[in-house]
Amino acid sequence: MRDEFSFIKSITPTNRFQQQLTIGIGDDAAVYKTSADTEQVVCVDAMVEGIHFRKDTLSPFQIGRKALAINISDLAAMGANPMYYLVTIAIPKTWTDHELQDIYAGMNELAERYKMDLIGGDTVSSKDQLVLSVTAIGIVQEGKALKRSSAKPGDVLFVTGPIGKSAAGLELLQQKEKDKPLTDMEHSCIRAHQEPEPQISSGTYLANLGKRIALNDVSDGLSSEAMELAEASNVQIVMNEEKLNSILPDLQNVDYHQKLKWALNGGEDFQLIGTTSNETFAHLQESSPTTLFDIGFVRAGNASVIMKSANEETVLDKGGYNHFS
Amino acid sequence: MRDEFSFIKSITPTNRFQQQLTIGIGDDAAVYKTSADTEQVVCVDAMVEGIHFRKDTLSPFQIGRKALAINISDLAAMGANPMYYLVTIAIPKTWTDHELQDIYAGMNELAERYKMDLIGGDTVSSKDQLVLSVTAIGIVQEGKALKRSSAKPGDVLFVTGPIGKSAAGLELLQQKEKDKPLTDMEHSCIRAHQEPEPQISSGTYLANLGKRIALNDVSDGLSSEAMELAEASNVQIVMNEEKLNSILPDLQNVDYHQKLKWALNGGEDFQLIGTTSNETFAHLQESSPTTLFDIGFVRAGNASVIMKSANEETVLDKGGYNHFS
Repeated sequence: MRDEFSFIKSITPTNRFQQQLTIGIGDDAAVYKTSADTEQVVCVDAMVEGIHFRKDTLSPFQIGRKALAINISDLAAMGANPMYYLVTIAIPKTWTDHELQDIYAGMNELAERYKMDLIGGDTVSSKDQLVLSVTAIGIVQEGKALKRSSAKPGDVLFVTGPIGKSAAGLELLQQKEKDKPLTDMEHSCIRAHQEPEPQISSGTYLANLGKRIALNDVSDGLSSEAMELAEASNVQIVMNEEKLNSILPDLQNVDYHQKLKWALNGGEDFQLIGTTSNETFAHLQESSPTTLFDIGFVRAGNASVIMKSANEETVLDKGGYNHFS
Repeated sequence: MRDEFSFIKSITPTNRFQQQLTIGIGDDAAVYKTSADTEQVVCVDAMVEGIHFRKDTLSPFQIGRKALAINISDLAAMGANPMYYLVTIAIPKTWTDHELQDIYAGMNELAERYKMDLIGGDTVSSKDQLVLSVTAIGIVQEGKALKRSSAKPGDVLFVTGPIGKSAAGLELLQQKEKDKPLTDMEHSCIRAHQEPEPQISSGTYLANLGKRIALNDVSDGLSSEAMELAEASNVQIVMNEEKLNSILPDLQNVDYHQKLKWALNGGEDFQLIGTTSNETFAHLQESSPTTLFDIGFVRAGNASVIMKSANEETVLDKGGYNHFS
């Protein structure tokens, strides 16, 4: 396939049959009405051996945990509460029963925390790659799901936590000379890669406010996720390089530009990135149970992402990892 | 993996978090409440290249169509009306953009017929096998979903149409000497394999009756599906060999035992198999818009499936295709 994005565009339906469908394909998850006061939120995300994970950097437990985490993160980005999940697993002969059970134990750890029931699945065999596809279902109060398309000029751009730690952790895991002991921050980066925490409490808090907030999760790099907000809202997203500094991983021996690259292009941080009015952001800084980091602003203009430093502005390319490039 | 069934048992949750969950893992689909009068019905089923399909017996259009059909069939077996679907596709380099778009066109054909919206998905790459996992979501009136566990001694055993045609069609497709022209029935068998019809109208009709009916779809062989009813309801299912004759594919040149084997072990017919009281069955024979074929009965005893001929009874083994055997 030549290009993932144009392929997805070519197979995206242009009409809708069900009137209850509030948000169709194209956001972090779909939303549809089922009762007078609640809506269902549904998403699916897959991980493929050798592409999204390798056995030498993630244990089977961590692979399963992460496959569910990336889906919970999509629910978080809509402001939904997780409820159920279903699992398709395609299994090559190279995986033992014990490893497979560990995959489910990893999912189960997060499922217990979020009270999610495993309600279905399909178990099939494959030749040489394990494929794990998880469907997650959540619930949100009617009309409160947070879309990518709500950003407006003048908004503050914020994230819910540090960005780039997962890519830093993967780099540390791939370094072969592991003689010297790791620092606490290095351990923290590795944990961010192996056992990411979806931001459900932040997502549901933001949704329950009932304010205009655009939201996305950082599954690909920050530049790619900001671009999704820019395109869905048809605005320019301006990231302030000085402010970004405060959310980069605090690794002493790593060059600043390397850390910035991890944040912009790395992905898998599963923090939330969003925009809202100055007024709502000021309220959030006082009231939100989780810290929100101001990293820039929104302005009118053609959909794009700009990096603003003291002396210049640079237009960022999409940069997120395209599986087919 | 040693055994698919014991593996699934080992990863099936033993507790439930969500009180709204009416039917968990272990039936054709899961069912959970979302409003005072309706329930959601969700299932997932995957197809893997080289295992569930090959490019020389199914076109890309037919592969996509079938991947959605097998999920709609699971909804039919619960008596649900289809609403939405999500698609995970893992794509090797050997597939062209045109073929991939045909896969989605095949799904779209059924989606249009059943007014299903494609609401999400994930597109990933794989090394050498196409994997297609579809999640389907339907709706059913509260309390009306039809479970496998409702069979009772004294019930009639019925199916909604001919069984074994899909396996016969696959056999015809695999025969290399295709010199002589095919008969109408041979064409019909090939169509049954390539473009199966899920039985939504029968399923929803049976559910809306509001009677006690056990229901399952024939995705594996008849013996395997009957065994699922037997185990879920803890009863003996007795198939009457003479009556079975009426639902075997009417292929003149094929040995009777071959046809019986296709019906019992072939699978992919996507008819429905069920049981209900004599009284309800008599009513159904008068009122049902689709024909129901009486093929046996239910009696008390340890969960098993029996083939009853004029002179003897034979206990059938599970027989359905275990992907890991």
